[in-house]
Amino acid sequence: MAKRKSLKDDSCPVARSLDMIGDRWSLLIIRDAFDGMRRFGEFQKSLDVARNILADRLHTLVDDGILEVAPASDGSSYQEYVLTAKGQELFPVMVGLRQWGESHLFAKGAAHSRLVASSSGKVIQKMALQSRDGRVLGPADTVVQKLKPGRD
Amino acid sequence: MAKRKSLKDDSCPVARSLDMIGDRWSLLIIRDAFDGMRRFGEFQKSLDVARNILADRLHTLVDDGILEVAPASDGSSYQEYVLTAKGQELFPVMVGLRQWGESHLFAKGAAHSRLVASSSGKVIQKMALQSRDGRVLGPADTVVQKLKPGRD
Repeated sequence: MAKRKSLKDDSCPVARSLDMIGDRWSLLIIRDAFDGMRRFGEFQKSLDVARNILADRLHTLVDDGILEVAPASDGSSYQEYVLTAKGQELFPVMVGLRQWGESHLFAKGAAHSRLVASSSGKVIQKMALQSRDGRVLGPADTVVQKLKPGRD
Repeated sequence: MAKRKSLKDDSCPVARSLDMIGDRWSLLIIRDAFDGMRRFGEFQKSLDVARNILADRLHTLVDDGILEVAPASDGSSYQEYVLTAKGQELFPVMVGLRQWGESHLFAKGAAHSRLVASSSGKVIQKMALQSRDGRVLGPADTVVQKLKPGRD
């Protein structure tokens, strides 16, 4: 397989994000980490993925600062993987993937999990981009602005 | 390369979404479609991707109901690809990837594009999951609830 072209220096933030996490396994590991999984064996059982692929993805996620290695929460000698602050900030991406899947990829009445508020147990409303005065913004309400170096 | 295991019947909406679009090229094509690109040549120029890969991904995105084929907007014989309503609803996923990249993947002052409101030209605040009364919800405020078939 040819080595894929890196997008890590691309000027588009979407491209850089996908260069880092635009891989099915990486995103599923991040999903499991949000669901509270911490150990190699837990991820492997959940994902049914080859050990070498899982080890590679975990290593890369640690290198990229999305996961960090932590001592086992039960005092055993296991190594655990937990989301960093940078990893935690992928929450909207996960929620976006989940809500889109809930809306479009299940037959009516088919079994699926759903995201509810811990406090109320109620289903959470769909996440949306909002203007500062609270209006929902769609694709037509936004535009990508190219910036030159030095502006921020 | 071994054929990847399909997650299209997985009970997790995140897994089903990633089964469909958890591929760097597919998500970059969708990004370009949000940016107004419509033609094979436009996508190819933007992505610098092999024609056979691009053709395969476009075909799959049409099959999956994310893009649809439309006659050329200028009356020529070109075929164009436009986002369906289902594809448009991936907007929060794209915005999430963009905002995370903007926050974490650029050195201070480095050139990058950013998303602004068409009406005001102002940078848009970060998208977040909100409760019905407007509080921002983080990972700890939500829980994944498994549902049995028949409940919805």
